[in-house]
Formats: sequence, structure tokens, C-alpha cells
Amino acid sequence: MAISVETLFLADDAQGTLQARIQQMIAQGILSGRFHRGEKLPSSRKLAAHLNVSRITVTLAYTELLANDYLTSRGRSGYFVSDNAPVPPSYTPQPTGEDRVDWSRAMVRQFSGGDTPRKPADWQRFRYPFIYGQADPTLFDHANWRLCAMRALGAKDFGPMTSDVFDQDDPLLVEFIARHTLPRRGIAARPSEILITLGAQNALWLTAQIVLNQKRSVAIEDPCYHSLRDLLAHVRCPITPIRVDADGLPPEAIPPQTDVIFCTPSHQSPTTATMPRARRQELLDRARALNALIVEDDYEFELSFLGAPSPALKSMDSEGRVIYVGSFSKSLFPGLRLGYLVGSEPFIREARALRASVLRHPPGQMQRTAAYFLSLGHYDAQIRRTSKALHSRRRALEESIMRHGLTVAGWGAYGGSSLWMQAPAGTDTTRLAEQLRPQGVLIEPGAPFFAGTQRPQNLYRLGYSSIPESRIDRGVAMIADAIAAGWT
Amino acid sequence: MAISVETLFLADDAQGTLQARIQQMIAQGILSGRFHRGEKLPSSRKLAAHLNVSRITVTLAYTELLANDYLTSRGRSGYFVSDNAPVPPSYTPQPTGEDRVDWSRAMVRQFSGGDTPRKPADWQRFRYPFIYGQADPTLFDHANWRLCAMRALGAKDFGPMTSDVFDQDDPLLVEFIARHTLPRRGIAARPSEILITLGAQNALWLTAQIVLNQKRSVAIEDPCYHSLRDLLAHVRCPITPIRVDADGLPPEAIPPQTDVIFCTPSHQSPTTATMPRARRQELLDRARALNALIVEDDYEFELSFLGAPSPALKSMDSEGRVIYVGSFSKSLFPGLRLGYLVGSEPFIREARALRASVLRHPPGQMQRTAAYFLSLGHYDAQIRRTSKALHSRRRALEESIMRHGLTVAGWGAYGGSSLWMQAPAGTDTTRLAEQLRPQGVLIEPGAPFFAGTQRPQNLYRLGYSSIPESRIDRGVAMIADAIAAGWT
Repeated sequence: MAISVETLFLADDAQGTLQARIQQMIAQGILSGRFHRGEKLPSSRKLAAHLNVSRITVTLAYTELLANDYLTSRGRSGYFVSDNAPVPPSYTPQPTGEDRVDWSRAMVRQFSGGDTPRKPADWQRFRYPFIYGQADPTLFDHANWRLCAMRALGAKDFGPMTSDVFDQDDPLLVEFIARHTLPRRGIAARPSEILITLGAQNALWLTAQIVLNQKRSVAIEDPCYHSLRDLLAHVRCPITPIRVDADGLPPEAIPPQTDVIFCTPSHQSPTTATMPRARRQELLDRARALNALIVEDDYEFELSFLGAPSPALKSMDSEGRVIYVGSFSKSLFPGLRLGYLVGSEPFIREARALRASVLRHPPGQMQRTAAYFLSLGHYDAQIRRTSKALHSRRRALEESIMRHGLTVAGWGAYGGSSLWMQAPAGTDTTRLAEQLRPQGVLIEPGAPFFAGTQRPQNLYRLGYSSIPESRIDRGVAMIADAIAAGWT
Repeated sequence: MAISVETLFLADDAQGTLQARIQQMIAQGILSGRFHRGEKLPSSRKLAAHLNVSRITVTLAYTELLANDYLTSRGRSGYFVSDNAPVPPSYTPQPTGEDRVDWSRAMVRQFSGGDTPRKPADWQRFRYPFIYGQADPTLFDHANWRLCAMRALGAKDFGPMTSDVFDQDDPLLVEFIARHTLPRRGIAARPSEILITLGAQNALWLTAQIVLNQKRSVAIEDPCYHSLRDLLAHVRCPITPIRVDADGLPPEAIPPQTDVIFCTPSHQSPTTATMPRARRQELLDRARALNALIVEDDYEFELSFLGAPSPALKSMDSEGRVIYVGSFSKSLFPGLRLGYLVGSEPFIREARALRASVLRHPPGQMQRTAAYFLSLGHYDAQIRRTSKALHSRRRALEESIMRHGLTVAGWGAYGGSSLWMQAPAGTDTTRLAEQLRPQGVLIEPGAPFFAGTQRPQNLYRLGYSSIPESRIDRGVAMIADAIAAGWT
């Protein structure tokens, strides 16, 4: 492409003659990687007019750059960045000056660091990716998603797609959630009790800001979703991690001063435990006794291919005590970034106001596309197809685990997309994961899910939502071999 | 559509016989608006199996509902919601119980309220919408946006579109901003100095969280963008509003203890003043003397159809002191929700970590679509087309203002999409706006842009980005008439 004259400005503080400054400006553009080999420079006439200098000054600068082989001339066609011009090793423009801000003083809060481990960005290049929470391109109904996007981008929907609707949501999407999605969880909610969020993460974050501060005590599951622990740490509220058992969070272990309880009754994350109905009632009773709120993260309920899912905890809540977090990330794709909050009106009103301040609203185009995908029935078909594939992979995984003698710590009675695994005592699964990587095997060490410093080191998670069924057995065999070799 | 059997659950706490509870469950679904007239009920066999009750119980319940005209029977086709069934006045399902949470106690922070005025959601139905910041469907290059969305939704881009990339951005979009957009503002930035945000609002919000707390003092322009004042109020930092003049923010008025300065040098919002180069240098010098940061909101720079825009303040910053906020909302459409932050690496690192905690990342599908729209040159064409139309409307507006004797308080020397207007002393433009509404005229009162209680009442803003040129004169005439009638 041609280099636009508008991208060229003379630096005010540059040294030297006008000609030298023009020369430097162009050379810096090339050196910094802004201008690429073969790109056409503005004509000397245009550049001279733009910079308000004489044309001969520009011509002289260009001639100098020709001599240095930064530029080449193609006669009447003008000047181009030379094929021999220096290329920066990567894209690293010259900084315009030295940073003189003491950022350690200028920034009052730190958000970096934290427990959340990084997944390798190139996981798709691994042959045995037992990772969790990514979409499988072979399962997603790409064609119908595109058709829905097309419809959402049609002239009729221009208003809803493009408008700044300030704090409002797409009424089509909200109505579908109220009429179709929530009733499947046993939940009745009015549109004013529903807020669309930028994924479940955003829903949990908004909730934490509204009901927590340094004086409010929170109880969380241990182990739990690491990002939840990180975002609660930012709020600086007192946190009590409660060790879960095979039935999930034990209500009697919740300390008396607790104000808010975060939990995942349907599928405990990451142990996959499902809380029995009786314990759910005990949990609600405990919350009532403490006058505490419960935040229910109902992720992945759609993937219940082994048995009908039990209704959400929220469906048993007659007092408005449960704040419900739903998400389309697991069932559609995580890059979608659409989730929702369901709660009492006063709470949703504040969450809506906070969301408006933080980001206004999730993009209309995404909301409308999802609304069409859901309401045309593609979503249900997608869930059925995904569940069928996961069911099949799950059977393969179970068989391989038996065959190779691995130990399961959490089965996920209703289905899901992962198993919670236990290596022999003394095994360090963080090192195990590092050892397996060069062999093309990705597993998730369990330690980062736990709070505190006394973290069990021998647990790990095997996701089966991204690995082809045909590779499961070989992958499990390699894990078993590595464990047997004794990575302790 | 048929009512799915999965949406039916028996309430645990319901009174009465099984038959009555089934009857109630269905009636409530109809009364609450969940089931619509004409929808097919599950067969008695299916529902009996689902609820684990005898089939005769379900049949008796259905028969009772038939008698009450909630349902009709179509012989072998089964049961349907009757055409005579009650319809709720609007969508208001029966709440499942009484809210027993004391929300005034349960919520520790309040985000609702605030200064930001509501724009009427149905502004498109007004004949003379002199409103600001909405897209004009007649100007937007809808066809190419769709084509870019199609390309972004192609199989090749499935990974970038659907993945949970945790805290990363679309490298295509970041590269385009670094190579093409920022150089037009005179800014050189590495990708590690750029963060994609969910619109400019999100960029300002992230910045405030990182550099401000109750002990850090902030200086803002007065008048200013109301949402900025609201989000700073949530941080509870000491705020000094500084009255702007015809050249924007006067640097000498910034108090000595200031830590962070928020400003709009290119186009002061809402007065449209452009800060001259000399004053920009004074502002940078003042910030250096105070060791303060500057947050530059460079909204709307693309719409400079009356003259070449001056480089951004950030381009004159050799010390890393300026945090730059850009947005595609004004130049594309506000529902896009895409903006960006440019700043020193340590700052961008924290902003990225905070963004990951709050919302992970803007949806990949939106980022990739925008990247294609920009890199294929549609964006520049869009800006040229929009600028041309705005230029023409602007001339019409100026002529009408002259003809009808209105007074302009801020012209916007480079262009933009609004004029800042002054009604005669004593005019209350809030009341004026209310008076004009029933006549189909929308104007924005100026008072909400000002801080404090001593707000000038006679200023207002006339946006011309959404009103057709042919209606401008009639609209201005009606404003002039209403002012002459004396709304004081």
C-alpha cells in the first residue's frame, strides 16, 4: 500500500536542517517497521505541501535516502521503499523518548500477577490437548452461526446492531433467555431481573463489586475457578476457602460471619462434583440463617449427556437470595463473550449501572446474532451434537484410563467436558505437565485451583472438549508412562 | 413453537394434590407469558414420564385446564394453549417468592443515579433529531461491513474468532492501529503499548481504576463528558473541574496537587474548542512540573473536514506522561464498542490484567471484522463519505442558525459533528428541550455537562450526525421560535 502523506509529521524536537529531519522521519518510519519494502512514498510535491516546506528540500531528502538504499526510484512512478531497506527484527518502532514517569508511584493498584495460569496460546498445535474450555471447530455449527450473523447484520437490524443503547440489552436475547433458557433450569425471571454480561467472568466481576468490600466476608469453594479467586483478591474482602467433598461445598463448613457464598452446585469447578438436592436445601437454609447471599455459577449445565441435569439452586430460592450466573461460552464458544446475570431487581439495577460505567453494553451485533442462533433452534441442535461427541469421547477416555491404570478423583456424574484426576501421592503434576508438553500432551495441573500455600500437588484435570477421540488413548498412555517414570 | 417438556418443573413448595400442582404449573406458565397462545403442550405420556407421575394425573390436569379454557384439544394432535387463554398485560411472570433480602444492606456500593442524562431510546422516530453520537444508517457502509464480518466468520478465522485468548487482542487489529491509525495522529507505539478496549468509555474506566484512588487528585474539564464525571465519582477521588475557554483547558488553572488531568485537546467535549499547539506545550510543561499524568480522549479526530487535524497531544509527549484514548465508535458506529488505549508498557500491562479480570477481552469476532474493515481501506472511504455529508450538513446548519438568529458558543474549528450553542441569558434549555420534544425536535441541554450546582442553564448542543440535511432548517426554525417564546 502507499504511505499516506497524513502519516508523516516532522518531530518538533528533532535536530538538524529541514532536509535532515525529513530524511530522518522517513528512515525512522522504515527502521521502526511502519513503512514496508515496496511501499510507495508520497510525491515530493505532495509531501512538500503537507509539511509546508519547499519541494527541493523534500527532493534532496529523497535523493539522500536513495543513496543510502532506503528508497528506490522507479522513474515517473515515484519513490518506493527499497527492497534492500533495513527491516527491523520484529515490530519495534523507536520510542519517541525515554519514559520519565515513575509508574510504581503513578499506579495506585496492581492487577497483574495472580493465580490464573496461562494456557499456551498455540494449544491447537499440540497433538494431545487435554485442555478445558476451548471450542472445537469440528463441533461448532459454523454455517448457521454465519447465517445468523448475516441476518443480524441485515438492514432491518441496523438500529439494534449499531446504536449506543447506553445500559440496555437486546430485548430479543433477553426474552429468549427468560422464556427458553431459564425455564430449563427451573428459573422464572422477568426481563428486569436479567442482565447480559460480557461472559461469565464479567458477571462474577460485576457481582463482586456490588456486594463485596473489605468488610464483607466471602466463602469460596476450594479448589475453585482461579480467576474467581483473583477477582475477589482485587476487592480485598476476607476470603474463606472451604474444601469441597464428593458432593461439592459442605454447607456446615461455611463460617458464621459469611456475607456471600460463591459456588458451582451443578458441576463443581474443577472437581466436577454435583451437589445433591438435599445439600442444596441445606445450603439455602444455611444462607438464610447467616442472612448471606449465594452466587451460583451454573457453567456447563447444557452438557449433561449422562443424565438429566437437576434444576439450578436458583430455582429453589424463594427469597431472592441467589444470584445466578449463566454463560454461552462453554456451549457455543468462549470468544463469544456472552453471559448473563439473574437476580432480584434492585441488584440487577445496580449491576446494569455499573456495567454502563465500565463498558456500556455488550456489542449489539453479538447479542443479536446469538438471539437468532438461539431462537431458530440451532443452539439446541448444537448442544445435542456437542453432547453426543463429548459422550463418545468420554467413554473412550474412561476406557483408556482403566486400561492404563490412571485414577479418577471426580467423574462428573451428569457429563461435562473434563475429569478430575489424581496421580500417586508424591507426584508433582506441575512438573508432570511440563514434562509432557514437549511430547505434544497438554494437561492442567491441579495446584493453581487451590487456595493458600498447602496445595495438593498430585491432582490434575483432563479436558476432553478439544481432543479428537482417536487420539485419546495414545495421549492417556503417554500420561500414564510419564507418571510411572515418577515425576515427583 | 412447542413447549419443551424440559421447561416444566414441579415447584417443591407448592400446595395441593399432584394434579393441582401440574395444573398450576401450566397455568402459571401461561399467565406469566412463558407459554403463548397456540403453542403445543407436551403429550400427557411425555409429561408424565418427565415428572415421574402417572399419566392419568396429567390427563386430569389437562382436562381441568381445558374446562377453564387455558387449553384447547385438537383431537389426536394433542393439547394447545387456547386462543382464549389469559394474556399478561406485559411480560411479567409471577415471582417465585417474596424477596427477603435487604438489598440496601446487601449492596455495599451504589452505581446507579449519576449525571449522565438518558437519550430517548426512540430518537429515530423524531423528525428533527439534533442528537449526538449515534450512527446514521444512510452514511454507514453496511455492505462492506457485512462482507468483512463474513470474512471474519470464515473457517480460516475460526480460531481467532472463537478462542478464549484470555488477555490478548487480535494482532491484526493492533497492528493496523499501530501502523495506520496512530501515525495519523503523530503517535509511534509498539503493540505492547496498545490495548483494545470495549469502546472509549471502557478505556477511560480502566485508566481511572489504575491511576486513581481516594487520595489521588484529578483535574477535569468543565463542562465535560458526563459519563467521565460519573465514573470518576465511583472512584471517589478528589475532583477539580476547571472551566474551559475558547482554547480548551487552561493549564495555569490546574491546581498544584493534581495527579491526573483528563482532557480532550483535539475537540473539547462538548464545547468543540481545539487547543492550540502552544497551549498543548504549556499543558505538557505543567504536567511535568506537577509530575502528573494526562489522559487524552481523542474522540472524533477523524471528522476533521474543515482543516487538517493537528497531531495528538500524545505525539508531543516525550516522557510517557500521556495516556491516549481512541475510539472507532464515532467514525463507525457506537454499538461496535471498540476503542483502544495507548500508553507506556507498565501501564498497559496493568490495564490488560484489569481488563482480563473484568471481561477477558473484546469479542474476537468484532475485533477481526473491524481489522478487515480497516485494512481493506473501507474505513478511510467511510470517513471520507461521512465527512463530506457532515460538511454539507454543517454548512446548512450554519446558514439556518444565521437566518434564524441563534447564537453559537463553540464552532468546532476542524469539523466534528456538533455545535455548542448559547440561548439568551435566562433561558432554561432543559425546559426548552422538553418543550421541543412533542414537536419532534431533540436537542441536548448543556447543564448536565457542567459540574456542581451552579450550572449555566442557557447552553445546549446541536448534533448534526443523525439529522437529514433537508430537515435542518425547519428544525432550527422551531428551536428559534421556542426560544423567542421565552422558555425561561
